[in-house]
Amino acid sequence: VKARNPDYAARVRELCALAPFVQELGIALDELGEGRCVTSLLLEPRHRQQNGYAHAGVVATLADHSAGVAAGSLVGPDEAVLTVEFKVNLLRPGRGERLRCRAGVLKAGRTLTVAESEIFAVEGEAETLIAKATVTLAMVPYP
Amino acid sequence: VKARNPDYAARVRELCALAPFVQELGIALDELGEGRCVTSLLLEPRHRQQNGYAHAGVVATLADHSAGVAAGSLVGPDEAVLTVEFKVNLLRPGRGERLRCRAGVLKAGRTLTVAESEIFAVEGEAETLIAKATVTLAMVPYP
Amino acid sequence: VKARNPDYAARVRELCALAPFVQELGIALDELGEGRCVTSLLLEPRHRQQNGYAHAGVVATLADHSAGVAAGSLVGPDEAVLTVEFKVNLLRPGRGERLRCRAGVLKAGRTLTVAESEIFAVEGEAETLIAKATVTLAMVPYP
Amino acid sequence: VKARNPDYAARVRELCALAPFVQELGIALDELGEGRCVTSLLLEPRHRQQNGYAHAGVVATLADHSAGVAAGSLVGPDEAVLTVEFKVNLLRPGRGERLRCRAGVLKAGRTLTVAESEIFAVEGEAETLIAKATVTLAMVPYP
Repeated sequence: VKARNPDYAARVRELCALAPFVQELGIALDELGEGRCVTSLLLEPRHRQQNGYAHAGVVATLADHSAGVAAGSLVGPDEAVLTVEFKVNLLRPGRGERLRCRAGVLKAGRTLTVAESEIFAVEGEAETLIAKATVTLAMVPYP
Repeated sequence: VKARNPDYAARVRELCALAPFVQELGIALDELGEGRCVTSLLLEPRHRQQNGYAHAGVVATLADHSAGVAAGSLVGPDEAVLTVEFKVNLLRPGRGERLRCRAGVLKAGRTLTVAESEIFAVEGEAETLIAKATVTLAMVPYP
Repeated sequence: VKARNPDYAARVRELCALAPFVQELGIALDELGEGRCVTSLLLEPRHRQQNGYAHAGVVATLADHSAGVAAGSLVGPDEAVLTVEFKVNLLRPGRGERLRCRAGVLKAGRTLTVAESEIFAVEGEAETLIAKATVTLAMVPYP
Repeated sequence: VKARNPDYAARVRELCALAPFVQELGIALDELGEGRCVTSLLLEPRHRQQNGYAHAGVVATLADHSAGVAAGSLVGPDEAVLTVEFKVNLLRPGRGERLRCRAGVLKAGRTLTVAESEIFAVEGEAETLIAKATVTLAMVPYP
């Protein structure tokens, strides 16, 4: 997979900065490549559900956002991506200091892109897979 | 469908109050019945993505939470529910003053419950369906 | 929802007849409207899994096919639909004489359509919901 | 992941042989390991949809069955697995001589197991990824 926008990194970072809910949750973009990225989020009390684990909505937002970043890195300068649908399986409780998400594009098409996100709970050096998502995104005109 | 916990309404409201991320987003429980509920969220700038629409993560959180409330209304006094997986289709942009979610249980089982959530954008009196989710939940011991 | 092809019924029936796997399984189109249909399948021993219930693949095929018919009834004369993705929840064992599927379009867009399928086990006059699916379809040129 | 049934291979092969729809489609079990398997299906005209590609229902059945085999290899001697739900993304048209599916367990739990299936179209030596599925399975008593 090759980016069609030579300035994809600047574009992706600009779009992340423009998304208030991504900033609100505190999602950071730690690595960005062509068709892939790594993101993370420091788990705070406000991110939790009633048992003290990361809320499924936090995990889902991280998964969706990261898939969007991975997909968005491959579009042309006049395009952006919008989530069509996604599915997430919550495999284990989300606890620890932070969540990390590794997202990658499975298929980049002309009108649709499919990406996957794996979400890990990070405790010190240990990473535990806690969720997996598949995300379908549509190409839309930019901005 | 009949609630097995006569105090289901108090239990459900207690659990909502104990979930920080639900409070953080500002999700309100407007109606609660046996196996169904209506929730809503006042759309604020912080809930948006880069185009100004409700972020998919906000829509997904509302869908997941509401399905959990609908499913949770049917469990016994010693049980609670936890999301196993969900899938959400984003049908239209989420704009307007608020989002409303109507959730209902499709099948309540001994170990698994499946619920659906329909999310609407509300503008004055008009409601537009913007997303639909299917949520699988597992019964777990309470608390 | 209104069909854009006045001959949608003939077109849909033609496409069903041209799909060998639909014929192979024995799926019948019992009712067809604009954006909706009812299909059915006589359950034979060959449709079963190891417990004697309808195989998840049979249920999934019926759900996908019926959603495609419902979506296909709304496209223009030069268009057809292709499944992008689907998700199916198997709620109860599929037993009985036949399976019936009621499918309807949730959102018909220019490039994507989302439809839902409910699958019932039919025993005499009784219908039991055994599965529910959400299907995303893309518009493609016909043929 | 370790199998809890030392005779898992015999058990899995016995269950495949007992599933008429798997035999009807012509699905072969080519490799079997603890928590993983490879299956395949010779594409025949009867497996096709109206464009000549493998029908989504064939792809879905292969994905679901293979995930069940992968998950079933890890259960105890008194247990079996049943599909709770699955989601499949169809990434490219399914053409070629055969379909091959590589399935693996993502998380094996006490009551639920989540597995993934990747489906490839095989043409000579070339394998092309045409679909990806995530499958949630429940443990049930055997038989």
